[in-house]
Amino acid sequence: MAVRAALFDLYGVLALPSLASAFSRAEEELALPRGFLNEAFQKGGPDGPSARLMRGEITYSQWVPLMEEDCRKCSQDSGIRLPENFSVSQIFGKAAATKINHPMLQAALALRKQGYTTCLLTNNWLDDSAQRGILAQLVCQLRPHFDFLIESCRIRMAKPDPRIYKFVLDTLNASPNEVVFLDDIGANLEPARDLGMVTILVRDTDTALRELEKVTGVQLLQVATALPIACNPRDVSHGYVPIKPGVRMHFVELGSGPAVCLCHGFPESWFSWRYQIPALAQAGFRVLALDMKGYGESSAPPEIEEYSLEVLCKEMVTFLDKLGITQAVFIGHDWGGMLVWNMALFYPERVRAVASLNTPFIPADPSVPTMEKIKANPIFDYQLYFQEPGVAEAELEQNLSRTFKSFFRASDEAFLSVSRVREMGGLFVRTPEEPSLSHIVTEEDIQFYVQQFKKSGFRGPLNWYRNVDVNWKWGCTGSGRKILIPALMVTAEKDVVLTPEMSKHMEDWIPYLKRGHIMDCGHWTQMEKPTELNRILIEWLETDARDPPVVSKL
Amino acid sequence: MAVRAALFDLYGVLALPSLASAFSRAEEELALPRGFLNEAFQKGGPDGPSARLMRGEITYSQWVPLMEEDCRKCSQDSGIRLPENFSVSQIFGKAAATKINHPMLQAALALRKQGYTTCLLTNNWLDDSAQRGILAQLVCQLRPHFDFLIESCRIRMAKPDPRIYKFVLDTLNASPNEVVFLDDIGANLEPARDLGMVTILVRDTDTALRELEKVTGVQLLQVATALPIACNPRDVSHGYVPIKPGVRMHFVELGSGPAVCLCHGFPESWFSWRYQIPALAQAGFRVLALDMKGYGESSAPPEIEEYSLEVLCKEMVTFLDKLGITQAVFIGHDWGGMLVWNMALFYPERVRAVASLNTPFIPADPSVPTMEKIKANPIFDYQLYFQEPGVAEAELEQNLSRTFKSFFRASDEAFLSVSRVREMGGLFVRTPEEPSLSHIVTEEDIQFYVQQFKKSGFRGPLNWYRNVDVNWKWGCTGSGRKILIPALMVTAEKDVVLTPEMSKHMEDWIPYLKRGHIMDCGHWTQMEKPTELNRILIEWLETDARDPPVVSKL
Repeated sequence: MAVRAALFDLYGVLALPSLASAFSRAEEELALPRGFLNEAFQKGGPDGPSARLMRGEITYSQWVPLMEEDCRKCSQDSGIRLPENFSVSQIFGKAAATKINHPMLQAALALRKQGYTTCLLTNNWLDDSAQRGILAQLVCQLRPHFDFLIESCRIRMAKPDPRIYKFVLDTLNASPNEVVFLDDIGANLEPARDLGMVTILVRDTDTALRELEKVTGVQLLQVATALPIACNPRDVSHGYVPIKPGVRMHFVELGSGPAVCLCHGFPESWFSWRYQIPALAQAGFRVLALDMKGYGESSAPPEIEEYSLEVLCKEMVTFLDKLGITQAVFIGHDWGGMLVWNMALFYPERVRAVASLNTPFIPADPSVPTMEKIKANPIFDYQLYFQEPGVAEAELEQNLSRTFKSFFRASDEAFLSVSRVREMGGLFVRTPEEPSLSHIVTEEDIQFYVQQFKKSGFRGPLNWYRNVDVNWKWGCTGSGRKILIPALMVTAEKDVVLTPEMSKHMEDWIPYLKRGHIMDCGHWTQMEKPTELNRILIEWLETDARDPPVVSKL
Repeated sequence: MAVRAALFDLYGVLALPSLASAFSRAEEELALPRGFLNEAFQKGGPDGPSARLMRGEITYSQWVPLMEEDCRKCSQDSGIRLPENFSVSQIFGKAAATKINHPMLQAALALRKQGYTTCLLTNNWLDDSAQRGILAQLVCQLRPHFDFLIESCRIRMAKPDPRIYKFVLDTLNASPNEVVFLDDIGANLEPARDLGMVTILVRDTDTALRELEKVTGVQLLQVATALPIACNPRDVSHGYVPIKPGVRMHFVELGSGPAVCLCHGFPESWFSWRYQIPALAQAGFRVLALDMKGYGESSAPPEIEEYSLEVLCKEMVTFLDKLGITQAVFIGHDWGGMLVWNMALFYPERVRAVASLNTPFIPADPSVPTMEKIKANPIFDYQLYFQEPGVAEAELEQNLSRTFKSFFRASDEAFLSVSRVREMGGLFVRTPEEPSLSHIVTEEDIQFYVQQFKKSGFRGPLNWYRNVDVNWKWGCTGSGRKILIPALMVTAEKDVVLTPEMSKHMEDWIPYLKRGHIMDCGHWTQMEKPTELNRILIEWLETDARDPPVVSKL
């Protein structure tokens, strides 16, 4: 039978360093004989404190004094003097501060993608220390990537107890010879090998992965840089906030920490941030990815005036009010970018920091109505096409799958022309009836957008374009202001409408503006260059939006 | 015409100190002549920087250097030397750090309750300083208590510009003589008085409130201590988390900060925390008030085994996983208390801190099955009555309004007997068909519970009682553990089932347990003594759950 399941140990395999090497380092630092800590750790065998800890019979905090006692005993037995500052909780606290071994995780992901069942099998403990958040976070980050997570302390069995391997096989519903098992402790592999599992003793990651390649026939060492994890709409928390009679906002929420509101553009969805949501949450932020007004599960009133930037911004403030969030970071793309710049300009006290992708901040010019500027630039012809209610709706709603496949394309695959749209009689007039699928989306992604737009269509989304004069007048009331809160502008080299060039005077209005630039990226930044974008956003968030807002007791 | 609307200034009226007294204090500290700062602040009149700031033409950060310049000019004009460390942003930063004037707010609330339209009218600025969170929080806290909030910087008009009073009257849809207006600056009252409004110059709160009493005829000085603000179900954010096929959890979410999960008991709702949610959010926490499994908008599978504590705790972990929350504070009441103690015992790494109301922690005793203990104590007879599927369901579902009016009663109004229930043939056998309304609930509260239980009835809720043996066996697997994470036990003096007495040995298992005790409180702690409970919970959260969980970069 072929191997079809892979079993990974945690410490020393999926997380580094191993307990053994953490012990060696501590022994060196404390000038203890090599092996001393491991001896104390093993003391008492299956009835000793550490075995009881791993089986969850006692908690970490109960174990510490017992282990300290065993260390004293071991030192007396072998005539060693423990250093003054000897502290089990300090040694173990450091040992528990492990990091994910990313090449090993990538290998596990690659196997899972190939149809392998994957399982994390770890001797673990009930952590009630002050640092227990570290272990919780490690396990939380790894859990979604594996089919199963088996922790000894939850099932009262620990490696190398033979019963635990039987438990694993039951869980995997596999025969031993269908399973490959990687561990850095030989004694933990033995009973598995005796049962008939393929075992790999992990000394270093490269060698272990080469062995795993041989066993599985799957290429694991040069795994192409994977896409960031994407959200699954059926697997996330959906929130609904009442804004006013007839209007509610829908959002997807992930993570804990300072609030970050993600505001998509036209014609999109909260789902456009699917590659950003898990990454920003992992970085320690509470992400709220909204369906903007007119989209998806948010309300879509028919009236044009419901989509003026003034109304939209007021409703974002109400959104924060209803959620009891004093301040949030606002990140927007396309029309969402317009919105977030206006949030910064009109409600700076509610904005912890502001970032826009592609959309520059250009203040309203009281001497030239925006409509004149739009008319003067052929690239904005599509916006004029969007003005007449009903016209673009008819074209865009006619075949939703075609619409999204035509829009969502990489910079080198794009075929829509935004100029001369009116002259041509529409956006899709000379474009394929059945467009190919761009490499930046999957068929399932497209179907998600299709389903989302079935509810309210394009009227609400198009109405965002139909408040040019009202928006200009409102913008003029803020035209003397500068944006002096933390701000980031991310330009995309190959966006043909929202070009990097358009952002060049932004420092006049945002003197401390930070910038990011993404090469070879077209309009759909979040899906075309998610890895690059995530890096830019996280670095900026860490430096400019990490501090909690100042909160006084009132 | 009688006065029917009340207009309150912010600084110096609803928030203290006033700008004037903050300026005086700064002048004293910096040895500047009295009135110096106000003179600089007024410089330029309606075209000066401060007037422009209040009209929102410039932001706070743009205003600071202009005001500094005006201070320098004023000092030169009058031959004063500004101190070395003179800093407008420091002076103004301190001035902006105001606190709510609670007697004034209580008066505004009392008037609103009497049918008055209330409005906050303030000369305010677009705060883009690093401390802008303070102003944002002040306004966010006050906003829900008023019908209208008018900030000068949003409408480009500031007091004493006569146009703003016209704007106010339009907003209130009132004639001048229907409005009373309180401000601490005489010049701001003048145009209002000229229009015909009743004006009150606020020098001290007591005198002002006495005048306001005279004008309105409403008693405002000895307003009885009001209940904490309650959540309105139609006005909050509702979240939905998929747990597994067929099971989702619903929660209400408010606030920003460390996550706090509120877990209600039998037979209740997220709504049972209605007085706690705003208070804890205001204290700087992110509250997630759940509909527990079987209740309200959460799923209610029919199977008994779906409600074992092991399954319920695992699902709470999944709830956190899906929301991307590594650690949360867990606060439970009644069965929710049982759940949170087990979260602390089995998943300490996910629990930032744990608190239980009424429900003591009593570890499973491997030598005596829990069922024997239940049978031995007559007070638990109702639990035996709940065992047979269908029986209690029929009685409790027959007349939902009667059920909740019979349950939810203060300690001195209770008439349900929990012992001899089986002998009597039910809980409600000799109780009123139409029970009076307890003073701890309103008719609307009762109707909310009624509506919530129409969806799934009592089968799921009662199933929590039907896993006695399974829960005992699971509990025994943790019987050697102690709870060593931050923990709080709140006892209610007059709970006749979950008596304070039952909690007396808890320190054996939770050596660092903190305690709260509420006098004259029966079983329904959150609604019977919300003010006392909020005080206890917030004090404990501030000390034991404020630090963020330790997060390492992995």
